[in-house]
Amino acid sequence: MRIAILGGTGDIGQALALRWGRDTDHELLVGSRDPEKARGKAEEYETELDSVGVERTVKGFGNEMAADRADVVVLAVPAYHVRDTVEAVADRIEDADVLISPAVGMERDEEGFHYRPPQTGSVTELVADVAPEGVPVVGAFHNLSADRLANLSVDLDLDTLVVGDDGDAVDIAVRLAEGIEGLRALPAGGAANAAEVESLTPLLINIAMENDGMHDVGVKFE
Amino acid sequence: MRIAILGGTGDIGQALALRWGRDTDHELLVGSRDPEKARGKAEEYETELDSVGVERTVKGFGNEMAADRADVVVLAVPAYHVRDTVEAVADRIEDADVLISPAVGMERDEEGFHYRPPQTGSVTELVADVAPEGVPVVGAFHNLSADRLANLSVDLDLDTLVVGDDGDAVDIAVRLAEGIEGLRALPAGGAANAAEVESLTPLLINIAMENDGMHDVGVKFE
Repeated sequence: MRIAILGGTGDIGQALALRWGRDTDHELLVGSRDPEKARGKAEEYETELDSVGVERTVKGFGNEMAADRADVVVLAVPAYHVRDTVEAVADRIEDADVLISPAVGMERDEEGFHYRPPQTGSVTELVADVAPEGVPVVGAFHNLSADRLANLSVDLDLDTLVVGDDGDAVDIAVRLAEGIEGLRALPAGGAANAAEVESLTPLLINIAMENDGMHDVGVKFE
Repeated sequence: MRIAILGGTGDIGQALALRWGRDTDHELLVGSRDPEKARGKAEEYETELDSVGVERTVKGFGNEMAADRADVVVLAVPAYHVRDTVEAVADRIEDADVLISPAVGMERDEEGFHYRPPQTGSVTELVADVAPEGVPVVGAFHNLSADRLANLSVDLDLDTLVVGDDGDAVDIAVRLAEGIEGLRALPAGGAANAAEVESLTPLLINIAMENDGMHDVGVKFE
């Protein structure tokens, strides 16, 4: 498939680009508000993939252009940029098979990280609200440490959760996730169940902060 | 230690009693609003432990009497009974080393289970609010399937999370949890972090509902 990673110059975008670049044949389009930055990062990813013996093309574009060309659009932007990113690309994604939301609203205080969803109940539901009609939205990839994913020498052996109201779109996201070696994707129901999935992210950060040697902790459901 | 399991005739109370009964030497007091029911269940647990070769005493009492005699009090009651249970035993637990809260506020609709904390932000914080001053409160054992725990032929190999503001009390809860074979306890910070811990429970139920063969799913942080 052709995957646009909007905000693909950030941590989780880079991590997904490198894993998909190494483990799959999906065509990868790195998007950024700044096309020049996207091109620079895409070249970096190519270089890093080449260093692990994978010769392949990664292209960089402005978010709109990347979204326009893709079957799958991943919103790899912080929670507070999700709405404007979707609005900016809305007329380019009407034909997309799925819009994937990995973002989580969090707040930090002296105790740790806390889940702070938008009014809609979750970021996934916010994306579903602002996405063009007919574009199925799926929440996925929330609970993965970007550092661990971006380090290609690490074997993952992790789970990620997928929520969404459109069965075909959930299936696509599950297959995309499981294209990454060592990653298992588990459906967790409709978008109404996204809050419980998203709130796993601050929990993982709190566990990482409280326990030595768990810096990039992930989760397995067994 | 001497552990009172209030609501110890219910699913998670039974599960903890059987595991502690088999794997540790802690003295176990099963509490119920109905002392007769508590005595009946305590005898049942003795019989079940005997059937796996463990000869030991489990006593049944009214909740107040059980709480009065214990070092550790576990509130193994549904979320909507937490407040009245704590209030009922308040003047009996002033010397307790720790009050442990495993309850989670949840609501079910056609999509699945959803986390619904009380006004205080979490059940753990509610317990801390209504507990007598000086009694440390810890949230733990939320994310364990009672059925899986109660089935003594199952090897656990699971994690549970512990949150609380009193370091000594957290340490006691961690040791109590890790007295159960195959269970690892991970601190996840103060009581302010309890919501993210508690919301793992509806998530696990949703995963169980959406995935074949994961009926009693638990979690490992890796």
